[in-house]
Amino acid sequence: MAVAFIENGSVTSPLGFLAAGVTAGFKRSGAPDMALLYSEAPCKLAGAFTSNLFAAAPVVYDRRLVAGGQPVRAVAVNSGIANACTGERGLRDAEKSAAIVAELLGVAPNEVLVSSTGRIGDFLPMELIEKGAQLGKNALSRDGGLDAARAIMTTDTKVKTFAVKIAVGGKTVTLGGMTKGAGMICPRLRPEMPRQATMLAYVTTDAVISQEALYAALSATLDQSFNRITVDGDTSTNDTFVVLANGLAGNAEIQAGSAEAGLFTEALSALAGRLAKEMVKDGEGVSRFVEVNVTGAKSDADARICAEAIAKSELCKTAWFGADPNWGRILCAAGYSGIEFDPDKVSLDLQHTPTVRNGRDAGVKTEEELGVLCNAPEVIVDLDLGAGNGKFTEWTCDLTYEYVKINADYHT
Amino acid sequence: MAVAFIENGSVTSPLGFLAAGVTAGFKRSGAPDMALLYSEAPCKLAGAFTSNLFAAAPVVYDRRLVAGGQPVRAVAVNSGIANACTGERGLRDAEKSAAIVAELLGVAPNEVLVSSTGRIGDFLPMELIEKGAQLGKNALSRDGGLDAARAIMTTDTKVKTFAVKIAVGGKTVTLGGMTKGAGMICPRLRPEMPRQATMLAYVTTDAVISQEALYAALSATLDQSFNRITVDGDTSTNDTFVVLANGLAGNAEIQAGSAEAGLFTEALSALAGRLAKEMVKDGEGVSRFVEVNVTGAKSDADARICAEAIAKSELCKTAWFGADPNWGRILCAAGYSGIEFDPDKVSLDLQHTPTVRNGRDAGVKTEEELGVLCNAPEVIVDLDLGAGNGKFTEWTCDLTYEYVKINADYHT
Repeated sequence: MAVAFIENGSVTSPLGFLAAGVTAGFKRSGAPDMALLYSEAPCKLAGAFTSNLFAAAPVVYDRRLVAGGQPVRAVAVNSGIANACTGERGLRDAEKSAAIVAELLGVAPNEVLVSSTGRIGDFLPMELIEKGAQLGKNALSRDGGLDAARAIMTTDTKVKTFAVKIAVGGKTVTLGGMTKGAGMICPRLRPEMPRQATMLAYVTTDAVISQEALYAALSATLDQSFNRITVDGDTSTNDTFVVLANGLAGNAEIQAGSAEAGLFTEALSALAGRLAKEMVKDGEGVSRFVEVNVTGAKSDADARICAEAIAKSELCKTAWFGADPNWGRILCAAGYSGIEFDPDKVSLDLQHTPTVRNGRDAGVKTEEELGVLCNAPEVIVDLDLGAGNGKFTEWTCDLTYEYVKINADYHT
Repeated sequence: MAVAFIENGSVTSPLGFLAAGVTAGFKRSGAPDMALLYSEAPCKLAGAFTSNLFAAAPVVYDRRLVAGGQPVRAVAVNSGIANACTGERGLRDAEKSAAIVAELLGVAPNEVLVSSTGRIGDFLPMELIEKGAQLGKNALSRDGGLDAARAIMTTDTKVKTFAVKIAVGGKTVTLGGMTKGAGMICPRLRPEMPRQATMLAYVTTDAVISQEALYAALSATLDQSFNRITVDGDTSTNDTFVVLANGLAGNAEIQAGSAEAGLFTEALSALAGRLAKEMVKDGEGVSRFVEVNVTGAKSDADARICAEAIAKSELCKTAWFGADPNWGRILCAAGYSGIEFDPDKVSLDLQHTPTVRNGRDAGVKTEEELGVLCNAPEVIVDLDLGAGNGKFTEWTCDLTYEYVKINADYHT
């Protein structure tokens, strides 16, 4: 047993983490819309934020904290308003939000991370932050992980929270995670050294781990998780993935490059990967999850470009909705992706069934037979370009009526 | 009067061109599915074809003809089967098709261009080519432009054919054009020097023009027409744009770089631009046409990248469907497009109404007021990045239920 998932695990599974999810009033629906996460001990922090130039105010604020390198104690998240494209006032609002939460929790303002998700362009009402922070503080509990995970949701239909454990030198180290995001999902996060959907993801851990090892684990995890997913190809202004390590597990400090660091990274990747996959499955209007594995590219970078082109193609995504094998659309997307390969050397398997060989119909199954195979909750596309050893896996979904409906009339 | 559109103009408006559209049997629907275009005099040829690596067999064949530099006399187009991803047999079928048409018309096989559009992966039945060629030859007429334009359609709902005229040294020079394409539309054509939707576009002209000037005019026209449009972001394997000049207008030969070449280019751009715009308006499921003008970029190349990101964004396209001004999504797409600019210097107008200034809500109109303005058949998005003099215009459309419906179950 290397990495084990914990039943009903959440961000409060690791030692010393408390959480809450409350209704502050950001959403017109009255659904929970503010989450608070608190650690009994100071946490080392690693973070990755959106690569969108219009980084939202809370992202600008959180980056500063990550750059500062000081320990943090809490995270406050509101859903319903993104506090993006709000200029200087938005940044002051983010700072004020952190200060409000800090005062209530008795910690320093620069020990509080803030995140926002929802509609772009609106200002964050400070009175709602105050209300939510007060309610959240009162509700903080060792059992609050699920509530917190629910409160960060927008168009999500399912709570996405998990936890895993590993053994480090005789001690149990636990990692808990939660994430949200269903639309505007194509996170391309950039890690921030101490000193980038709207997807929001928070991982807590009680591991004792060096800052360097924590950063390395986060960096190594991105391509195995959030940076390999897309729902609609739109990279949000607010994407945030942070890992908080409070050191309460009592293990010998995990050092970068060690076997234990490898195990921790494996655990983090398993947890973040699961969160990312569940995010796509719960993406806006999604009826089918699709894994696109590109192999045989000249480089991993080429394989990524090709996998992303297929994963984002409206024609591929609508065909998947219709359980139409339509391999021509997959090859077409590979062909316009901009990378180099020989079309006559391309092989494609759909649901592990040979479909294209040497750039042409493999003739193994009829279109109808392939259609039956593709009419499944998960479709696996294996494309080999025959041009080298580069590979990349992208997780995507179909494009449905429901996606159009949700986004042609989006109000929280 | 520089360039004038001709009422009910078509590819048979220029002197010496005959056309026909017939039912050969490629489409299960029984709709016309083969077009023939014939010139009474040999034509100089300029062509631009898809940049997709999986270039269809007819594209491979036509490129050879363009490279050969010899005059051509005819074009045969079938709709319903794309003859793409069909390997060596597909190429032999393209050659055979040209030979069949050539023999019937009494011209050489290398004087006949062939094009195909429709489903990828199927072989072209030669008996249908024979039937269509025979029917087409019998139907060739000076009035056949409209029939030809109808026969090249697939999911198009409207015939797209126009003609323009200019005066060159006292002589009238006429250009006629037809195009098809509604899905898999994001042509990025590359011009082929004599020696790259499925969009297909054919322009006929009776101009006397040098090969060099014809090529230059075609090259200059691309960014003003087909290379600035997208319906679904998918660049087809079969995209083709050819210009045939038979020299029957009797004008003094138009030389590259001359004022007349400028006028000819203007005429070709006006014609091709109109065809391209109509293609987007008639795109699959389209309910709204959208023009995205990006200015103030560091370079024209940057402006193009930014305009394309907005034009292809599923969130922008679904918002446009809903007449939702949602300027945050437009800024978001600009922000992840990958180019550099200062978010605080960005201005956005929707329908010529100030919407964003300095990266924030301009506060001129309410969301409801902007929504009313955007509920129009054409939406104009003017985005200024405040970073330089680069500019580019992209023509796109909304993303609708109907698009999903058409492409989740596509059969000709």
